[in-house]
Amino acid sequence: MSQPLRVGMVGYAFMGAAHSQAWRTVNHVYDLPAPVEMRVVSGRTEASVAAAAARLGWAGHTDDWRTLLTRDDVDLIDICTPGDTHAEIAIAALAAGKHVLCEKPLANSVAEARKMAAAAAAAQQSGVRAMCGFNYRRVPAVALMRQMIAEGRLGTIRHVRAHYLQDWIVDPSYPLVWRLRREVAGSGALGDLGAHLVDLTQYVTGRSITEVSALTSTFVKSRPLPSASAGLSATGSAEYGEVTVDDAALFLARLGEGIVATYEATRFATGRKNGLRVEINGSLGTLVFDFERMNELQFYSRDIPETEQGFTRILVTEPSHPYLSAWWPPGHLIGYEHTFTHQAHDLIQAIAAGRDPAPSFRDALQVQLVLDAVSRSAETCTWTAVEPVSV
Amino acid sequence: MSQPLRVGMVGYAFMGAAHSQAWRTVNHVYDLPAPVEMRVVSGRTEASVAAAAARLGWAGHTDDWRTLLTRDDVDLIDICTPGDTHAEIAIAALAAGKHVLCEKPLANSVAEARKMAAAAAAAQQSGVRAMCGFNYRRVPAVALMRQMIAEGRLGTIRHVRAHYLQDWIVDPSYPLVWRLRREVAGSGALGDLGAHLVDLTQYVTGRSITEVSALTSTFVKSRPLPSASAGLSATGSAEYGEVTVDDAALFLARLGEGIVATYEATRFATGRKNGLRVEINGSLGTLVFDFERMNELQFYSRDIPETEQGFTRILVTEPSHPYLSAWWPPGHLIGYEHTFTHQAHDLIQAIAAGRDPAPSFRDALQVQLVLDAVSRSAETCTWTAVEPVSV
Amino acid sequence: MSQPLRVGMVGYAFMGAAHSQAWRTVNHVYDLPAPVEMRVVSGRTEASVAAAAARLGWAGHTDDWRTLLTRDDVDLIDICTPGDTHAEIAIAALAAGKHVLCEKPLANSVAEARKMAAAAAAAQQSGVRAMCGFNYRRVPAVALMRQMIAEGRLGTIRHVRAHYLQDWIVDPSYPLVWRLRREVAGSGALGDLGAHLVDLTQYVTGRSITEVSALTSTFVKSRPLPSASAGLSATGSAEYGEVTVDDAALFLARLGEGIVATYEATRFATGRKNGLRVEINGSLGTLVFDFERMNELQFYSRDIPETEQGFTRILVTEPSHPYLSAWWPPGHLIGYEHTFTHQAHDLIQAIAAGRDPAPSFRDALQVQLVLDAVSRSAETCTWTAVEPVSV
Amino acid sequence: MSQPLRVGMVGYAFMGAAHSQAWRTVNHVYDLPAPVEMRVVSGRTEASVAAAAARLGWAGHTDDWRTLLTRDDVDLIDICTPGDTHAEIAIAALAAGKHVLCEKPLANSVAEARKMAAAAAAAQQSGVRAMCGFNYRRVPAVALMRQMIAEGRLGTIRHVRAHYLQDWIVDPSYPLVWRLRREVAGSGALGDLGAHLVDLTQYVTGRSITEVSALTSTFVKSRPLPSASAGLSATGSAEYGEVTVDDAALFLARLGEGIVATYEATRFATGRKNGLRVEINGSLGTLVFDFERMNELQFYSRDIPETEQGFTRILVTEPSHPYLSAWWPPGHLIGYEHTFTHQAHDLIQAIAAGRDPAPSFRDALQVQLVLDAVSRSAETCTWTAVEPVSV
Repeated sequence: MSQPLRVGMVGYAFMGAAHSQAWRTVNHVYDLPAPVEMRVVSGRTEASVAAAAARLGWAGHTDDWRTLLTRDDVDLIDICTPGDTHAEIAIAALAAGKHVLCEKPLANSVAEARKMAAAAAAAQQSGVRAMCGFNYRRVPAVALMRQMIAEGRLGTIRHVRAHYLQDWIVDPSYPLVWRLRREVAGSGALGDLGAHLVDLTQYVTGRSITEVSALTSTFVKSRPLPSASAGLSATGSAEYGEVTVDDAALFLARLGEGIVATYEATRFATGRKNGLRVEINGSLGTLVFDFERMNELQFYSRDIPETEQGFTRILVTEPSHPYLSAWWPPGHLIGYEHTFTHQAHDLIQAIAAGRDPAPSFRDALQVQLVLDAVSRSAETCTWTAVEPVSV
Repeated sequence: MSQPLRVGMVGYAFMGAAHSQAWRTVNHVYDLPAPVEMRVVSGRTEASVAAAAARLGWAGHTDDWRTLLTRDDVDLIDICTPGDTHAEIAIAALAAGKHVLCEKPLANSVAEARKMAAAAAAAQQSGVRAMCGFNYRRVPAVALMRQMIAEGRLGTIRHVRAHYLQDWIVDPSYPLVWRLRREVAGSGALGDLGAHLVDLTQYVTGRSITEVSALTSTFVKSRPLPSASAGLSATGSAEYGEVTVDDAALFLARLGEGIVATYEATRFATGRKNGLRVEINGSLGTLVFDFERMNELQFYSRDIPETEQGFTRILVTEPSHPYLSAWWPPGHLIGYEHTFTHQAHDLIQAIAAGRDPAPSFRDALQVQLVLDAVSRSAETCTWTAVEPVSV
Repeated sequence: MSQPLRVGMVGYAFMGAAHSQAWRTVNHVYDLPAPVEMRVVSGRTEASVAAAAARLGWAGHTDDWRTLLTRDDVDLIDICTPGDTHAEIAIAALAAGKHVLCEKPLANSVAEARKMAAAAAAAQQSGVRAMCGFNYRRVPAVALMRQMIAEGRLGTIRHVRAHYLQDWIVDPSYPLVWRLRREVAGSGALGDLGAHLVDLTQYVTGRSITEVSALTSTFVKSRPLPSASAGLSATGSAEYGEVTVDDAALFLARLGEGIVATYEATRFATGRKNGLRVEINGSLGTLVFDFERMNELQFYSRDIPETEQGFTRILVTEPSHPYLSAWWPPGHLIGYEHTFTHQAHDLIQAIAAGRDPAPSFRDALQVQLVLDAVSRSAETCTWTAVEPVSV
Repeated sequence: MSQPLRVGMVGYAFMGAAHSQAWRTVNHVYDLPAPVEMRVVSGRTEASVAAAAARLGWAGHTDDWRTLLTRDDVDLIDICTPGDTHAEIAIAALAAGKHVLCEKPLANSVAEARKMAAAAAAAQQSGVRAMCGFNYRRVPAVALMRQMIAEGRLGTIRHVRAHYLQDWIVDPSYPLVWRLRREVAGSGALGDLGAHLVDLTQYVTGRSITEVSALTSTFVKSRPLPSASAGLSATGSAEYGEVTVDDAALFLARLGEGIVATYEATRFATGRKNGLRVEINGSLGTLVFDFERMNELQFYSRDIPETEQGFTRILVTEPSHPYLSAWWPPGHLIGYEHTFTHQAHDLIQAIAAGRDPAPSFRDALQVQLVLDAVSRSAETCTWTAVEPVSV
């Protein structure tokens, strides 16, 4: 085994906990060219980050992420903070010669994302790698979906139908956490959930969105200021503030070659907890994925006799399925956190092999351009073309 | 088109209504060699049967079923009464040269069933036909199941898993209707629901049950005497009587060639309304049927690549599926009553062609012998062989 | 019982067969104030309509629908022909003092629909009734959905998500039947499927669509001319013609009070046979309907303790559910055709009671105005307001 | 935080890998009174166990499990070996004052299990704890099931319906691995799968099986000797050997208070990968669990208005659900391995609190007595009483 990959992580809330579980696990499940070492976690408050380091398994901690840039024992910086800080940290890290894994959405604006993609392109010249964390690509069923489409199992694609439905703020007394403030989160359901939909559907189909017609809505316009929060849970105070992001974003899209699509991201679909659902209809078949049953993939094929056609619920837990050979026997399910372990696996393999990992910052910039077109379309109430990627 | 088939029906409650809908419909959906004429319905009470005749579409009515025997304008007698009357009516009808369709279970005892089978065998010599109404054979998904097993799609059969789950008497205040009295109904869940399970599983597998180990249970031992009832609905009075049939019957079985099976019939499976569910596991695949989703059949096949294997939900509504070409376009469901229309179709075709319809009284006697073995096994708490059919 | 309701039907293909089954059945299942008499069916070809009359149970037939107008023994004219003929027949029938049941979509243009609504309004003055056949309102689960929303079980409505997915023309060799020709059908998936979505979602929510942003697509632009067709089945010849209707129509919509919606109607969703699916999210709960499981309704309620919340699959077969008390015991499913029987029931009750049945021609005109806004939006690529109903 | 809990594990195949993942994770997810230290793993072959230690995260390794008994730095011995070795290791470990976690089934015979329970009872006097690893108790949905039954949500229990369906040896060329040899595994599907069913159903209902009528079957009687195996995967050689365990075990059972039950454990249910399914019917409701959808629990309650009754799919991922507050937001699923993490959590809490963990060796002995009654019933073809537990 070669040199270890020494990781420093910035942020330790929901995403930080999920990434930590992946870093703790990946070497014990996969045979990797490099062992992972969890060196240091960074946060703003000394006491909190110290406790997080102990709980999450990081060797050290710091209250200044900039110290990671100069540490010789950190090879990779893993950015798990809100979107308003991504650009600064990622660009500095790349400049310091550190590999970067950055949570999605890449940034809160196209301008920032473009700078980040430029920084990644520059760093790549000296073998420094950058990756954006669209973890749902690493659900085995999603990877299988991509593989089957690439193999032509759906024929000519006609329809994309993509929803990301949650309900965690349906209660108007839920407080105004950072995810509901534009200056921190950039946008609401659009950037948080819609970004996943855009990346995932483009990834599995191999096609890019070219134009959109969108609407966004904020159903509950003011909320109690938060008194405390943890993960997606929070409690509110008596004072109110304005919600400055969208609660829901809906758009029609074209993906080229005649493909038409509906997209919908919302935090107001009561009863839908993490309902990331994608259906792709092609001339030869259909594939359907629903994250709430993430170990399953539905497949309809016109390639079999008519009397036996139907939607097949593939239980994606076979050793022959993507990522699964390392885990448990068939029918023994995996969970949400495994997507991050798979992501870590792919990143480590790419770094060790001297390859660029995917999705790149450029890929993530392209997603940002789609989100930007959606925002502009919703504001102007017109069909809006997605700007081509240029770094 | 040849001579019409003129029908007289005995009984007009739940089963009578279902049969009437079938007789009213079958000629308008299928191209048949003979038109059906609904001549007369018989019941015990003049006023009630007159109302039933008007409502259900029968040309005439009578309060004495024996008058049907001598009417020249009745070709077929359709028996929809409780089980204690089947033998007398069927034997008399066959002796009078009338074709007979008799609701299941064929009789309340093996002795009666054997006499009926003998009568049918004798009548057959003069071209008189007898059929027992196991209507679930005529669910298109069940017919498809049989067809696929016969074609070898499951390979060597290993397991039969058959449940018929209802909950209509789970409330102890539900009254003591005729279905809960042994002298009328013969047995409880066993004859009412278990008979369907036995016939259906033997039909689709082509194998017969050879021995059983059973238990039966009556959970609620006394109930209010009924003050009124309609279909499966009823209201109770203040007086109580003893429940003399089983509420549930469970048994293990062997079907020959190493096939092992579990059977369960109950009226106490809260939430299961008409949960007739059958799963057959074979060396090459599995088929699963659930009546509560009667337009669907689940199929698992090992004949496709491992990565794409899974349970396929076949929506059994294609023109290429059994019975379906006469109905609606794909995806436009059919319902419970259609099984009786299909049964009428098959019976008419058999009569017109001079063939014996299936299931015959002999087939139904064999089911009765299985039920009898179950009863005896439950009483003696021993494995009990099913007596071979002899008429 | 009062005077019979004597029906004359125009057209006898798919819709005519479904309506006939309803007229044959409704009196035998429901206690109605008037018996139905199936007097006459009309078609263009003498031989064909004669055969249809015999098969479908009509007493007489004619090759000229105009003869129905002057017959004293016809009280109601049931229009089951393609959309290009609706206006002429309906207006003439109403003028002749006949009640009218007209299949959806009401007409092929707003202008025609407006004339029809005006004719209905005029006829109503003399007690002549007109109804449009949006049969899906009469699915018990849909009626229950409306009832629960009206009772406030969903709270404030946020989202409507409505898809009508079919796949019957996904094969490019499927021929150019009348449903694919604008001059006969008016539009493609939009009028055929989208009309149902618009009516159904407006019906269950009690809200109207106010503006839309749409796209339509024709994936397969030319097809073989048909050599024969029956129902939705057809075979093609060697010659080709141009498809002049949409294969798919997608639109975003607003329904007032902040409700946002996505709609999608397509004939290219491989594997979806009759996938009419509607999800309504409100502040207190969610309801979901899928026609392929038409006996079920999914309901999520925030009104119960969090640990027990989830989507409840209501099997809509209880006597306490809409329309069901007349049918079979719980768990014994009904099918597609029952929606027409329920429609006939409601129409007969309204006529007998001297009430206007719903949906009225005015309601159907409003649906037409929505479809028109969708078409114009798709052409102009702009958000388009739905014109208010004025007759 | 108190003294660490230092663990030594014996065996490192499928179960060893699952336990290792739990030991690596439990301290990073839950706030525990004692940190876990993974000190040493034991196996028979030096090279293999060394590699396993490195991969699975154990500080040291040994090829002699007896060395664990005398190490001062091992507090708990975790037994993950085949059943034929459980008794010797567990009894020695307890005698050496080590806490023991032993995989199920507790032993290959009642005699061994009884000795183990006696050893555990003796050790308990000096504060040494023993627990059997029935991990499925720690599925959150199963824990919720128990809780809801204990709260009376089902009323009087009537039926238990329990299946554990797998298909990994349905191919007759699958080799004769240790799990198919009686001298190592004790039994086949019965001890491997049936043991889980017995424990789980007794656990959730709080009732014990009192008598059984069983059959067992070995469908494929000889198989190729294995040339290599890993987890449940294996490849075969040209030589054959006899299968000496059951492929399937089916039994009827009584659980006291009139509860009747069907149980079925099989490795020949084609398409069922880890189909552990339990349905409990009570007078007030029903609960259904299926491991292939382990994050869900189905609940039917008669406590709500009839029109809204149905099976509710509870997505068991809320912070208010058992074990879940430590994991991810609602709708973000957990997997198979989490059951072992929960098990480790419960065990550590019990040890730290000086309580006996559950299930105890005595509990596991009782399961063994049920399995023994099943075996004897299958041999003698008679109803067989379960021997009462006595240590």
